[in-house]
Amino acid sequence: MHSATARLLARFSTAPLVQAPMAGVSTPALAAAVSGAGALGSIGIGASGATQGRDMIRAVRALTPEPFQVNVFCHAPAAPDPAGEAAWLAHLEPAFREFGGRAPPSLDEIYRSFLGDEDTLRLLLAERPAAVSFHFGLPEAGAIAALRDAGIVTLATATCLDEADRIAAAGVDAWVAQGIEAGGHRGMFDPAGRDEGLPTAVLVRQLVKRGGLPVIAAGGIMDGQGIRAVLDLGAVAAQLGTAFILCPESAAGPAYRDALKGPRAHRTGLTTAISGRPARGLHNRLMALGEAAGGPAAAAYPRAYDAGKQLHALAAAAGNHEFAAHWAGQGAPLAREMPAARLVQQLLAEVASSRKG
Amino acid sequence: MHSATARLLARFSTAPLVQAPMAGVSTPALAAAVSGAGALGSIGIGASGATQGRDMIRAVRALTPEPFQVNVFCHAPAAPDPAGEAAWLAHLEPAFREFGGRAPPSLDEIYRSFLGDEDTLRLLLAERPAAVSFHFGLPEAGAIAALRDAGIVTLATATCLDEADRIAAAGVDAWVAQGIEAGGHRGMFDPAGRDEGLPTAVLVRQLVKRGGLPVIAAGGIMDGQGIRAVLDLGAVAAQLGTAFILCPESAAGPAYRDALKGPRAHRTGLTTAISGRPARGLHNRLMALGEAAGGPAAAAYPRAYDAGKQLHALAAAAGNHEFAAHWAGQGAPLAREMPAARLVQQLLAEVASSRKG
Repeated sequence: MHSATARLLARFSTAPLVQAPMAGVSTPALAAAVSGAGALGSIGIGASGATQGRDMIRAVRALTPEPFQVNVFCHAPAAPDPAGEAAWLAHLEPAFREFGGRAPPSLDEIYRSFLGDEDTLRLLLAERPAAVSFHFGLPEAGAIAALRDAGIVTLATATCLDEADRIAAAGVDAWVAQGIEAGGHRGMFDPAGRDEGLPTAVLVRQLVKRGGLPVIAAGGIMDGQGIRAVLDLGAVAAQLGTAFILCPESAAGPAYRDALKGPRAHRTGLTTAISGRPARGLHNRLMALGEAAGGPAAAAYPRAYDAGKQLHALAAAAGNHEFAAHWAGQGAPLAREMPAARLVQQLLAEVASSRKG
Repeated sequence: MHSATARLLARFSTAPLVQAPMAGVSTPALAAAVSGAGALGSIGIGASGATQGRDMIRAVRALTPEPFQVNVFCHAPAAPDPAGEAAWLAHLEPAFREFGGRAPPSLDEIYRSFLGDEDTLRLLLAERPAAVSFHFGLPEAGAIAALRDAGIVTLATATCLDEADRIAAAGVDAWVAQGIEAGGHRGMFDPAGRDEGLPTAVLVRQLVKRGGLPVIAAGGIMDGQGIRAVLDLGAVAAQLGTAFILCPESAAGPAYRDALKGPRAHRTGLTTAISGRPARGLHNRLMALGEAAGGPAAAAYPRAYDAGKQLHALAAAAGNHEFAAHWAGQGAPLAREMPAARLVQQLLAEVASSRKG
């Protein structure tokens, strides 16, 4: 085993807790508070350029000497589909008009994939965060090797056994087993592929039985009892995202927080309508547009996100948050509002006390 | 608390394990073997008349003095829909013809609901099994009261918090929290209603936090580690169905067993095409017929089951099992083949050893 992996596992043996990267929601302050409290904090730089990514990493470093995780997106770039995009934009047009705007004439690739992104690879090799995780697939073999050679632990999201096998074969150090209940983007390599939709517990247990890599369980876990449950299934740690959204250190805005604290937390949806890839969030009108009978398919990721963000900005300016990306997992009703360091302490205390059960 | 409930909880404190009723798969021999080994065995009589139900209960009694559970179906009868049924039958017609048959001209209500079924209520009050569980809803208040007054523990399936509230308000003694990963019929009260699709762990944790009734966790649990995990979440017991299908005491036929032991166990589907209500099983051609783009909705439960069973019988006679009801949960790849009593011992040993973790 990679010595960096051994160090991470040693950290998990006392604090089996990862704060999910959540690009756009996590902040350097959140990651630093979590890492400072003994768990593994994370930032996501998949929605940032290399320069902004570097600034975020350095901002964490300025706040804590503890290890943290940096997440990147490894999606294949969207294939050109002008007719499909036009149909999707026409479908959204009435919503744009409702708020006095117009749908844009075309869409942009707003996020650059880590695939082939030499700038971000150089940045990571220079900054050397303790862990780098891959979502939506795997980068080139050379990038994985370079990161490992730099002493960085690599992790990758698996939603099924086939993806897990590919991750293990690529020399990545650990699996992030993401269940169907998880909030945010589903990490499936091929968003057009069939999705068995395994929940966290089912996926974790199958990966543990298969063996090969340590398993970090992600999806629906909101408290120490939930962490203890996945440890009993054989995971080395649990990754919690939704549980951290209400922390004051997160970037979630007031409308997002209000929704998560109220009855809307009981209804989530898995939709492609917001970004173009399946992602789970609090159900809203943009998801309903995606579910309209006979409606067009959403544009591909991340081009649909360009439309979704523009529509949300327009509606939000009028005080309407029905088109927002309020990502949340199905455990959302159990989210707690407290500073991140206190939440980490609380979670670890719950894990410890549930061990006696 | 009902003294009968206290007795059941005491049993769970040493053997927190229920074998799921699985009408058509469970047998008196299976239920008796499980109960005899210290757990709670079960039979389902929802697909039987009162006379056959009585015979099944007496057959368990002849094999063991231990307590067991009897499950009944509480579905609302199907509303007449001749046009919808004709469309569904026309959709199945090519498959019937492929095996040299014809779709039937109309469908029958092949299972009588426990709703208003005085014969079955009288039978249960006379035979007094330790526990009676309700699936697809709740019976009349008088039936619940009569069962409780007879010293029978009542249980009911909840797939969401709203159903759980209705179960608690009706005076039922315990919740069976059924996650989306569970095999067989999803217990939702209204099959046409919106389904949040909560996995077992998420649902259990929310019910435990809400409180009111003991929670029996059902769905995706295949081994003692999985049982331990739901106990950590606060459940009093785990109900396992798919884990018992390969036991020699189950009624599963050779094709079902072969499918469950092979690669097909990795692909399940939640379909209405087989019975008319959402149910999870190993994916097959009848499910694919239900998923056909632009195809008609399946006939209502249990009338669609009349068509499905006829089609399966015709195809099976030609050696084709692609139209079978091979129910299985998403944990199916972890099913083990051994006698039921040995499986119970193994599961309880795993629970005990995982407690030390």
